[in-house]
Amino acid sequence: MTNKQENLPTLDKSLIITPAGTVRGNAVFIAGGLGNIKGLRSAGVNAGFRRNPNRRDFALIVSDQPAVASGLFTQNRFAAAPVLISREHLQHAQVADAAQIQPDEGIKAVIINSGTANASTGEPGSAVAIASAMLCAEALECEPHQILLASTGVIGKTLAIETFELGIQKALAELGPSDGSSLDAGHAAAEAIMTTDTYAKEAALRYKVPRADGSLVEYNLAGIVKGSGMIEPNMATLLGVFATDAKLTQAAADAAFKQAIDLSLNKLTVDSDTSTNDTVFFIASGGAVSATSGEIIDIGGEGSAHAAFVEALSTLCIELARQLAADGEGATKLVTVCVTGALTDADADLAARAVANSPLVKTAIAGHDANWGRIAMALGKSGAVFEQSQVSIKLMDLPVCIQGLPISFDEDEALRLFDLLPEIVIEADLGTGGNGTAVIWTCDLTHGYITINGDYRS
Amino acid sequence: MTNKQENLPTLDKSLIITPAGTVRGNAVFIAGGLGNIKGLRSAGVNAGFRRNPNRRDFALIVSDQPAVASGLFTQNRFAAAPVLISREHLQHAQVADAAQIQPDEGIKAVIINSGTANASTGEPGSAVAIASAMLCAEALECEPHQILLASTGVIGKTLAIETFELGIQKALAELGPSDGSSLDAGHAAAEAIMTTDTYAKEAALRYKVPRADGSLVEYNLAGIVKGSGMIEPNMATLLGVFATDAKLTQAAADAAFKQAIDLSLNKLTVDSDTSTNDTVFFIASGGAVSATSGEIIDIGGEGSAHAAFVEALSTLCIELARQLAADGEGATKLVTVCVTGALTDADADLAARAVANSPLVKTAIAGHDANWGRIAMALGKSGAVFEQSQVSIKLMDLPVCIQGLPISFDEDEALRLFDLLPEIVIEADLGTGGNGTAVIWTCDLTHGYITINGDYRS
Repeated sequence: MTNKQENLPTLDKSLIITPAGTVRGNAVFIAGGLGNIKGLRSAGVNAGFRRNPNRRDFALIVSDQPAVASGLFTQNRFAAAPVLISREHLQHAQVADAAQIQPDEGIKAVIINSGTANASTGEPGSAVAIASAMLCAEALECEPHQILLASTGVIGKTLAIETFELGIQKALAELGPSDGSSLDAGHAAAEAIMTTDTYAKEAALRYKVPRADGSLVEYNLAGIVKGSGMIEPNMATLLGVFATDAKLTQAAADAAFKQAIDLSLNKLTVDSDTSTNDTVFFIASGGAVSATSGEIIDIGGEGSAHAAFVEALSTLCIELARQLAADGEGATKLVTVCVTGALTDADADLAARAVANSPLVKTAIAGHDANWGRIAMALGKSGAVFEQSQVSIKLMDLPVCIQGLPISFDEDEALRLFDLLPEIVIEADLGTGGNGTAVIWTCDLTHGYITINGDYRS
Repeated sequence: MTNKQENLPTLDKSLIITPAGTVRGNAVFIAGGLGNIKGLRSAGVNAGFRRNPNRRDFALIVSDQPAVASGLFTQNRFAAAPVLISREHLQHAQVADAAQIQPDEGIKAVIINSGTANASTGEPGSAVAIASAMLCAEALECEPHQILLASTGVIGKTLAIETFELGIQKALAELGPSDGSSLDAGHAAAEAIMTTDTYAKEAALRYKVPRADGSLVEYNLAGIVKGSGMIEPNMATLLGVFATDAKLTQAAADAAFKQAIDLSLNKLTVDSDTSTNDTVFFIASGGAVSATSGEIIDIGGEGSAHAAFVEALSTLCIELARQLAADGEGATKLVTVCVTGALTDADADLAARAVANSPLVKTAIAGHDANWGRIAMALGKSGAVFEQSQVSIKLMDLPVCIQGLPISFDEDEALRLFDLLPEIVIEADLGTGGNGTAVIWTCDLTHGYITINGDYRS
């Protein structure tokens, strides 16, 4: 599939990725991904899930100690076997007391294969997913329910347990150290989960949270994600693993993860198609927490360690959501749609999502066409409540419509901005008098998308 | 815009259009369109709404007598001025007694311009639309509310009343006869409303309805439609005018039109974008009803004249919906999605629509790829209720998935069928035990769509 993409124009990702050293709120971006997390080891190997032996296709992420973990999954009724099983495992692995995690509580490892989605595979598919967790649990001397699974790739193809066996063996042999210095091993894991992604997506932050006494303590936070369209061929589903070396209670982890994903990956759309395999995991390894100090982040309100953690996790997830959108299949622009002045946040989300999913808006951007009438059309069909005579629209900061009426703007300047900007920002104020807002990330719709998805499976 | 489309592969429409002479239920297809309707005169002229003087851009359809009429409109909150005004006019033009239509009741004419949508134009846009109805009413010596309006084209551009003035003059001079023989004039009207359509879409039927005494009476039914994407550039919104020379009561006309459109144009999707200008009108000219016999079709149940009329109108509307889908921007295939075994018709519609709107399903068909996993994905994300282990899927009559499990099928045969068939049928049985069904028409998603919609406005 890589050769399909060779001749397509793509966005220079360095224009989108936030560079190391950038400060955002209580966090600073650092190089690398999961390799920064103390207490966590990663590997990415070729196990034979793909025919190309030079392409990594199996990732293993192991926590030194059973860790508090959280997961969010696709709502698709054709949910794949690994989704159904990971959901069950997470329920069994709930941690009652993060200060004293019992041997059969928490998560020990995540295994992810690319190449085959293990979706629409019925009983045989479930059997091989369960068997793969058992194999991994045996190797790591833990319970099978302490293993989380994810798969991405072709739907309706059955996997062989032998491929998992080889993958687990090879990955165990290549696991990086867990001292927070294994950036290469973390990168290998990010590579192993790629499908039509044009590059491995990872990000990491160092962030500060307040202790009870008001002093600050530093931890690391990192994530890897994949996904550029939705399914095979040139399959691509959204998968992600996020981790910190802080300690969190189960409730704090679940709440923080849900909040951060709702603001980031759940605000992302490439082609409106929801995969059968979408899965994101979060692991709190506790690897940076000394046994004696034993700081644990628990649920808490404004100004709390939990609030600070949610802020950092949201920053990380938004960074990776933007990277995913910018690497959407065939994308030449990251597109950010901001809606304000809606009656509610839900209404703003409806309106922004309609614009972000509109093929006509997306092809206009691909064509560098400041065709704001299509934006108005998409807002109008969204179901969000407003009066057209109150709506104002800006495109790349140029006002194009004020209170429902067209504003003449400099078309040459618009063309210049389209050429220049890697990120096209669309702003719509619905003018209802309400405070509802939403931001949705997407990309343009180009010939590249058709080429990637319209070619026969090969 | 035509030159943009010159080099694009398109579907040979003759493979989709139902030929004259074809019998369908109580109706037989006949040649031509609106020109078959007795009591109705049509014209299509160039009035200067477009720069190209060789392209018709203004249609006028006049009923000899004020006629019972019905209309259905876009739900878009950025609804255009002609939509808002036609809605009002129809309310004022309601016919109390179809046997004795009063001079200020009913509709005398429909005027439609292409080139400019008169949407997002605020007060000035409303003013010009109202003025155009007044001009036409003056010429026809009727009330302004007896004129229906529709526009299609660029959003946010204001129209000049002078262009309407010229259009009305020229069209009045070119109106065809109202004896049901003016096929050329009807065709000119169909041409005048085209935007990115690759051909003028019209269809006509001769149909039979039972009289009170059980004997059968024959009438004509015809329609013109346009629309292949949603908006400018290469603008295209869905517009349609349907007419019969039977007489119907207001209630019978409204009910029949709603029922037929719900089964046809409301089951159509090209790109999921809802235009600001979607408008369909229905006119019962009564031109084939002698003043003495005075047959009037009123609301009635099974076996009634009304039921027979609804059947014929649905046949006509479905024919034109299929033509619209087959002429979707860039389409190389008509795609028909049939869902059965859903809990309710609404659930079946959800599921079929999700498949029909899925960019991944549509690009797979463009690529002649029997990638049924994408169909499963789309069903799964639709929100329709089912168990994946009960779902069976057929593609071009080949079973590809039975009760949630992949069935091996002959890929070469699938490729042969993809090459051969102008219409790709996708059938999904959700297996819920319910009787919900739906059929949705769409087209494939090709490079042509991107080329048509991604080029800068010119």
